[in-house]
Amino acid sequence: MRVLHELQGKMKEENIDFYIVPTGDPHGSEYTPSTYKDREWLTGFTGSAGTALITLEEGFVWIDGRYYIQGEKQLKGSGFQMKKAGLPETETLEEAILRLAKPQDTIGFNGKLLMESQLKSLKKSLNKRKVFYKDKDLISPLWKDRPGLSKEGLFLLELQYTKYSASEKIKQVQDILWEKNLDGTVISSLDDIAWTCNLRGKDIPENPVFYSFMVITKREATLYLPVEKQEREILDYLRDQNIYVRDYDQMYLDGKNTRGSRLYLDPQKTSATLYKNLEEGNEIHEGINITTNLKGIKNELEIENQKKAYITDGIALVKYFHWLKNHGIGTKEFDAQIQLTNFRKESNLYIEDSFTPISAYGSNGAMMHYSADANDSTRIEPKGFYLIDSGGHYFTGTTDITRTLAMGPLTEEEIRDYTLTLKSHIALATTVFLENTTGNELDAIARRPLWKYMMDYKCGTGHGVGYVLNVHEGPHNISRNKINVPLKPGMVVTIEPGVYKEDKYGIRLENVYVVKEVGESSDGKFYGFEVLSYVPLEPMAIDPSLLTSDELDWLNEYHKITYLSLKDYINEETKDWLKEVTKPIGD
Amino acid sequence: MRVLHELQGKMKEENIDFYIVPTGDPHGSEYTPSTYKDREWLTGFTGSAGTALITLEEGFVWIDGRYYIQGEKQLKGSGFQMKKAGLPETETLEEAILRLAKPQDTIGFNGKLLMESQLKSLKKSLNKRKVFYKDKDLISPLWKDRPGLSKEGLFLLELQYTKYSASEKIKQVQDILWEKNLDGTVISSLDDIAWTCNLRGKDIPENPVFYSFMVITKREATLYLPVEKQEREILDYLRDQNIYVRDYDQMYLDGKNTRGSRLYLDPQKTSATLYKNLEEGNEIHEGINITTNLKGIKNELEIENQKKAYITDGIALVKYFHWLKNHGIGTKEFDAQIQLTNFRKESNLYIEDSFTPISAYGSNGAMMHYSADANDSTRIEPKGFYLIDSGGHYFTGTTDITRTLAMGPLTEEEIRDYTLTLKSHIALATTVFLENTTGNELDAIARRPLWKYMMDYKCGTGHGVGYVLNVHEGPHNISRNKINVPLKPGMVVTIEPGVYKEDKYGIRLENVYVVKEVGESSDGKFYGFEVLSYVPLEPMAIDPSLLTSDELDWLNEYHKITYLSLKDYINEETKDWLKEVTKPIGD
Repeated sequence: MRVLHELQGKMKEENIDFYIVPTGDPHGSEYTPSTYKDREWLTGFTGSAGTALITLEEGFVWIDGRYYIQGEKQLKGSGFQMKKAGLPETETLEEAILRLAKPQDTIGFNGKLLMESQLKSLKKSLNKRKVFYKDKDLISPLWKDRPGLSKEGLFLLELQYTKYSASEKIKQVQDILWEKNLDGTVISSLDDIAWTCNLRGKDIPENPVFYSFMVITKREATLYLPVEKQEREILDYLRDQNIYVRDYDQMYLDGKNTRGSRLYLDPQKTSATLYKNLEEGNEIHEGINITTNLKGIKNELEIENQKKAYITDGIALVKYFHWLKNHGIGTKEFDAQIQLTNFRKESNLYIEDSFTPISAYGSNGAMMHYSADANDSTRIEPKGFYLIDSGGHYFTGTTDITRTLAMGPLTEEEIRDYTLTLKSHIALATTVFLENTTGNELDAIARRPLWKYMMDYKCGTGHGVGYVLNVHEGPHNISRNKINVPLKPGMVVTIEPGVYKEDKYGIRLENVYVVKEVGESSDGKFYGFEVLSYVPLEPMAIDPSLLTSDELDWLNEYHKITYLSLKDYINEETKDWLKEVTKPIGD
Repeated sequence: MRVLHELQGKMKEENIDFYIVPTGDPHGSEYTPSTYKDREWLTGFTGSAGTALITLEEGFVWIDGRYYIQGEKQLKGSGFQMKKAGLPETETLEEAILRLAKPQDTIGFNGKLLMESQLKSLKKSLNKRKVFYKDKDLISPLWKDRPGLSKEGLFLLELQYTKYSASEKIKQVQDILWEKNLDGTVISSLDDIAWTCNLRGKDIPENPVFYSFMVITKREATLYLPVEKQEREILDYLRDQNIYVRDYDQMYLDGKNTRGSRLYLDPQKTSATLYKNLEEGNEIHEGINITTNLKGIKNELEIENQKKAYITDGIALVKYFHWLKNHGIGTKEFDAQIQLTNFRKESNLYIEDSFTPISAYGSNGAMMHYSADANDSTRIEPKGFYLIDSGGHYFTGTTDITRTLAMGPLTEEEIRDYTLTLKSHIALATTVFLENTTGNELDAIARRPLWKYMMDYKCGTGHGVGYVLNVHEGPHNISRNKINVPLKPGMVVTIEPGVYKEDKYGIRLENVYVVKEVGESSDGKFYGFEVLSYVPLEPMAIDPSLLTSDELDWLNEYHKITYLSLKDYINEETKDWLKEVTKPIGD
């Protein structure tokens, strides 16, 4: 309550009538490290998403369906009221402002934490009201003990993992700048910078990136790096790659001093503050970052390495599944996921987990973003489904895989739904498609077998996966979002349909695929999906009578290769188990 | 050549440096009657699409792939040069202007024949050049013998065919105006006006519409009708429906005199001239015409009637197919299509054909928009495929159907491709889908079986169909175009995948479906397709080994109902034939 009142005092001083505190960092990152958790500090609500709006009298936080209960609890005593986001009957933040704001009112925000695209969308929603906007950080003066960034240094990803050097990648970007007649591009997205420089960091848990900006002009490249990260050997390496180094904070000032240039910016990844600094006196061209498009298409070496990473990962999973089938009953979900991470750690190429595993027994599996509580998670019982969605960062690539296992007897409904999920998965995995087809156009192919039974999963079908980088990566995905990015050879993407039945169970079957060319005819080039992940499915949960002969062939071939790929890296007992679960079905 | 020079003379008088002559009428109609064939009169090129650009020295016509040969021939001696549209290596009209135009140049056009959306798109392409735009009709002063509109009068569609009266439909529009806080809407699209007024006309061949504008305000409705169409009984009827009548040309002036209103306009259906007149002093809200969305969802009576129309149409087709199988060999394509129209005419509900039939033997079928020449069409031989795409307007509805028939022995490739086309058709026809799904999202489901064999059809999968109205009707369709209109119950749509092999054959299997609700679950409402067309498929062309048991079930059930629906309306001989071709396959 005190903090809210202090902020309202600051607002009065600055003549700000509404103050917005979003969730995010100055780079449009998916995960927010503690340094930038302004909203959490202000409201006490710890969820991964949510936006606070403060008026001179009140405070609100928009919180989505995942966090209604937690939000209610955590906001107690803060003076903030919860607004349920995502419900048609609840007003949105924009609607609240439209209801409360008078002409000439001022809306404030820290423009470093708000992406330019978010600000533009806000302005569009409010364009009927004549209001003013003020970019002003009111939180820092109040938040005396704001934590700093991670102290961890950067590390290099060698050419044996990347194929191309940083200077070669910069050259690729520069070629595109020449082609598009642009003077330069300012990159804020951290995974793009990590990819370009062949460097990795540990500033965001589970995303191996480091805080920085990068400017690439037709002839030069500059990395804006916090002083404390400018270690000798990193500076030497960057000099070798012809990359200039400047201090991180200098970016805003350099942006302001740039004039007369044709600049390329990604409004979804550039903060409103930086965008404004760059906009004055320059001609801005907007689009997805050039590096995002380059990075999205993996080269042959990256694909070869990723295939190895999936074998490494498959070994850990098979060990885990075998352990789980023998020792899982009575184990808590959280303890189980620790065991899995330990199996992953057995590889000397392992760096860290690529995200916090979703280790969910029974009805917990129905919550798509469930996270087992370290101190109080559910015990696995000898029946029904256990869902495990996990992945690792290895020097050879990043993995992401979901399997749903039978921990004992299954109901007919569970078997039917598992089999339908498998049909969904196979339908898309076996699709051949014409060039220039987007993931959005293919999405319904995966949903069709579930739709037939009036079931739908309320999330995307698949997402891009980084290479020793973020587990969620653009520019492409497979979903109902109208993202106009065609799938191209070299793009890596998950296929992960599922069935989620509240208070009952969740089923998700996720593999990672790489798009490859399958041939060309007079009608054009045709592409398909090549599977990277080899991990057994659950034979106990499959009803062969619901599968066509083509689907059974796919399943048996997949299991055959899984066994052959993994059998030499596991002990005899595990191998016998693997042989059993991968034996042909339905003949 | 003389006409081109005269036009260039006029351009000089008016200080116009570039003059654009598009194909179209003042209402965004798909087909252009002779009155508005300015481009054809000017250039001599008679194709259904194409745009002329005249500079002070030269003349060009952009002509698409269907008409390259015809265009070349017809432009000889006109002074116009052909530009091949749709090829990446040919410059577009906009690129030509960008290359030739100097700052301050003036681009002229007749704004009545250019839709506002086309003008906006032109301006957007040219926004780097500082040019001026001038709306000026330079053709009419030169085209002394411009033909008039059709002299045919209007006719009424009774309530037994429409269910709702014109005044009830106007009330529906007015409710939406109130809801959206709009003062009125100005409707230019002729099928929308015909639907609203329950009137039909014969101003455009095969589209039963009449030239008019319509203004609906919160409290009034006005029809702008050419004086010569204002017959006594039509005026009486309109008065009964509380529709005011004004003269057609008065629309432009009334538009100019409207002030201070919030007006709703469809920029794809409103001419640049009318848009400009309405824009001054009013607040324009843009979107698909309100009536287009209302009209797109058929009411129960319309659906019942349409089912009858498809039976009526099916009878004609079965008679035709039986005739064709017995007398078709040696017949010319054009003579055959006359025979089909004659069978349709046997019904007393028949009004006219809903489009010129595509009667295409052999390799002619590979041309998607083939039209048999009345004097010189191909003779049907005793082998291979004959494709017939046709439809009729009946008082009970509008039909559109395509079948591909074996006229004798087929090759293995022909049988495979026919069967794959059938698989494509069935895949989409049997899809159940979640509410809020667009045709664009479903399109790939139809293409998938063909893509697997690296084949693709270069057109949409399906289009809306009018009710005693245009055979192509929005707002929805099923195609690769990113039209964001979800399919809703009551929408009528074709499914028409195909295989087109240049110089060999064409296969297209088209039925018409109505979207219906199939049920609701905790995941939402689910919709599916109910077939309206019952016309037999070609058993000789089907390889049952390529079909799954579900697909065979669909086919046999479809044939069973086809036989039962039509058998009582045909003679014994035809009935025997129908029984034979609809008997179960693959058991």
